[in-house]
Amino acid sequence: MVSVDVPVALLGYGTVGSAVDRLLRDQAADIERATGHRLRVVRALVRDGARERGSDVEVTTDFAAIRDDPGIAVVAEVMGGLQPAGDHVLELLRAGKSVVTANKQLVAARGAELFAAAAERGVQLRFEASVCAAIPVVKVLREALVVSNVHRVLGIVNGTTNFVLTEMERGSSYEAALAEAQRLGFAEADPTEDVSGKDAAAKMAILATVAFGSRVTFDDVAYVGLERVAPEDVAAAREMGMVVRLVGAASLVDERWDVRVGPALVDRGHPLAAVEGAFNAVMLQGDAIREITLEGPGAGGIETASAVVADMVTIVGTTGTGFLQNDACWRTLERLPEGDVSSPFYLRVEVADRPGVLALVASSLAAHGVSVARLVQQQGEDSATLHVVTHEAPAGRLGEALAEIDGLDETRGSASALPVVSDRGVAELGWA
Amino acid sequence: MVSVDVPVALLGYGTVGSAVDRLLRDQAADIERATGHRLRVVRALVRDGARERGSDVEVTTDFAAIRDDPGIAVVAEVMGGLQPAGDHVLELLRAGKSVVTANKQLVAARGAELFAAAAERGVQLRFEASVCAAIPVVKVLREALVVSNVHRVLGIVNGTTNFVLTEMERGSSYEAALAEAQRLGFAEADPTEDVSGKDAAAKMAILATVAFGSRVTFDDVAYVGLERVAPEDVAAAREMGMVVRLVGAASLVDERWDVRVGPALVDRGHPLAAVEGAFNAVMLQGDAIREITLEGPGAGGIETASAVVADMVTIVGTTGTGFLQNDACWRTLERLPEGDVSSPFYLRVEVADRPGVLALVASSLAAHGVSVARLVQQQGEDSATLHVVTHEAPAGRLGEALAEIDGLDETRGSASALPVVSDRGVAELGWA
Repeated sequence: MVSVDVPVALLGYGTVGSAVDRLLRDQAADIERATGHRLRVVRALVRDGARERGSDVEVTTDFAAIRDDPGIAVVAEVMGGLQPAGDHVLELLRAGKSVVTANKQLVAARGAELFAAAAERGVQLRFEASVCAAIPVVKVLREALVVSNVHRVLGIVNGTTNFVLTEMERGSSYEAALAEAQRLGFAEADPTEDVSGKDAAAKMAILATVAFGSRVTFDDVAYVGLERVAPEDVAAAREMGMVVRLVGAASLVDERWDVRVGPALVDRGHPLAAVEGAFNAVMLQGDAIREITLEGPGAGGIETASAVVADMVTIVGTTGTGFLQNDACWRTLERLPEGDVSSPFYLRVEVADRPGVLALVASSLAAHGVSVARLVQQQGEDSATLHVVTHEAPAGRLGEALAEIDGLDETRGSASALPVVSDRGVAELGWA
Repeated sequence: MVSVDVPVALLGYGTVGSAVDRLLRDQAADIERATGHRLRVVRALVRDGARERGSDVEVTTDFAAIRDDPGIAVVAEVMGGLQPAGDHVLELLRAGKSVVTANKQLVAARGAELFAAAAERGVQLRFEASVCAAIPVVKVLREALVVSNVHRVLGIVNGTTNFVLTEMERGSSYEAALAEAQRLGFAEADPTEDVSGKDAAAKMAILATVAFGSRVTFDDVAYVGLERVAPEDVAAAREMGMVVRLVGAASLVDERWDVRVGPALVDRGHPLAAVEGAFNAVMLQGDAIREITLEGPGAGGIETASAVVADMVTIVGTTGTGFLQNDACWRTLERLPEGDVSSPFYLRVEVADRPGVLALVASSLAAHGVSVARLVQQQGEDSATLHVVTHEAPAGRLGEALAEIDGLDETRGSASALPVVSDRGVAELGWA
């Protein structure tokens, strides 16, 4: 086969953009062997054209110099943020260029509009790098599991929070763990996006859309973050042979979806419990495959760049065939009512140390149809803490029971509840 | 896009073949949405045309009825075995038909010949299902990690042996664990192929070929099986916070490869240690990705069928583009000399219970440059067992030390040695 030269452009030339440029140069021979094409960065959009970059790539501050160059067929958007990235991508697609993006916020917020524009012009928009960097979960979901009816995606999709939680497991305080994550470059100076669950929510929206074929946007994802995790939860989890993880859970139940992110207790035998430090993992459960778990580094410049390059290569390799070139959305499913989301739960209730309190709590749970699988009572100075693991129960009913328990004279403060991922065949998760 | 009807044929209509037929029927709408094509089984080659199949698929005992039908563009070989499957596949490729095969023996033994025939006619041969069923490790290696320079593949690629080893860990004898595997359908009546490491060796040959771009055939893979695992090894591993696993290891060191299969001690913190029961997992280590681990069921009719269908869909989606349509072999690398393969090792030596024995063993190791990381002496009635974990050492030097130790008057029987997978950045493994 005769090799074809493919000029490509970059929007952004920071850590990821420069790594894309370097990978395309260093691995040119590998790419040419795989695809029969030579991909070459001809231009990069930057904010400051005068800055020294240690590369001979041609930079421009003029977006039109990329959009209007008929020689450029593929563009990688690696600048991040909703604007101007979003409008740039839209204009590029409308100008007939295929786009690869590493921008989770953009895909999770404006996916519908962008994919419609791509379809209209018969070009591609690929977005592997927007979820878990080099872990090829989008490719696997769409191409390898095309006949698998994936009905659940469980993921640890934020490395910062996973690092913090594994450090807390080893005895660190939340503050010390976060400071260590910042020192190591796993967390931003302002870690809000990560620790609030927001970053994970955007990724879960994208994965749910691809897995279920129905649009789920960032706004559709209920998320809570590490503010829900007390050191006592981490200690109690350890006592019970579990670990605390920030879990993203997307479920399809009777053709209705639920997508949420929040801390959960995960059984030590579960593949997600083995994910340590800043790593990510995604478990896909489906009819034909039972479950497949992918684990790896979920962030990093070179890792993200490698996913961007793989998407560029896939575009070049599938141009003109119509193969999986949309965003996988083909139906409109409804959301599962909040209270119907069902899972086992871990509850922690501080109670007055008096006879009969345990019976009161247990009967509140029973009255709402929540049955207890395990109960440990921990004695304090003048109070006691009840650690309860329930059998699977709808979040709505658990919420009612908790409200009743919080209202008892015998309880101190409010009970805290986290869902439990107890085995491989776990139900959807709920945060009550 | 207008949908196109794609008639396909099957060689074999057993568990996998009938599942492929069923998936193509049940998931026709999903496939059409993804590819714009309708795949439909029009004929299946069987040995006994009169047998009842509970399906209206047209069966034939005449291979020519498939090979010579110009309407058939894609054929799935799901009959297994080297012959007649091998010649059938060759003839199909020469007749201009793309082939998907689930046959690891065939790909590992005759890959070079088959891929050459495919290239000559401009058709595709895809083989995802030949390794770990529905776990899409070939696709990930070739498409997602195209620029990652994968230099190591570590895998648990045989479910039978993993089931047996995890049962032994829980206290079963080898015989009881194997009988249980047979009862559950995880092991054949004749389990030789699995327990000898032969099945895993064929899979590792295929993975090494794809990962390193150089031909590795079944005959190139050194393998040992569960005969090397004594109950004492399993118990000692547990004591040291490790588990015994049958590990396939393919390494590229200074542009030379080594591929082997055998039991190893795996640290509990390593992702491969978390693989329980009949599951498989493959860890890919490379420059741009650090490491990515894929875990899932490595066998099963429907799981294998789902990989076959995904390959058929990929063929339909990439026809005419030249995208990754060879077997990834593009260079000829040499094998790493046997003795140069380096890893930490676990040694078990039974010795007479006399003063000075420990010093003799330690100095034999030291004399060959093998340094000791951990040593536990376990007292028996009139002898003692030394459990030694070494630092990384070349297998050749360890072998020399072992020969010397076995020759000591103070040792009983011969020392046993297994490699250790101690952390994520492990070196290649050696079996001395």
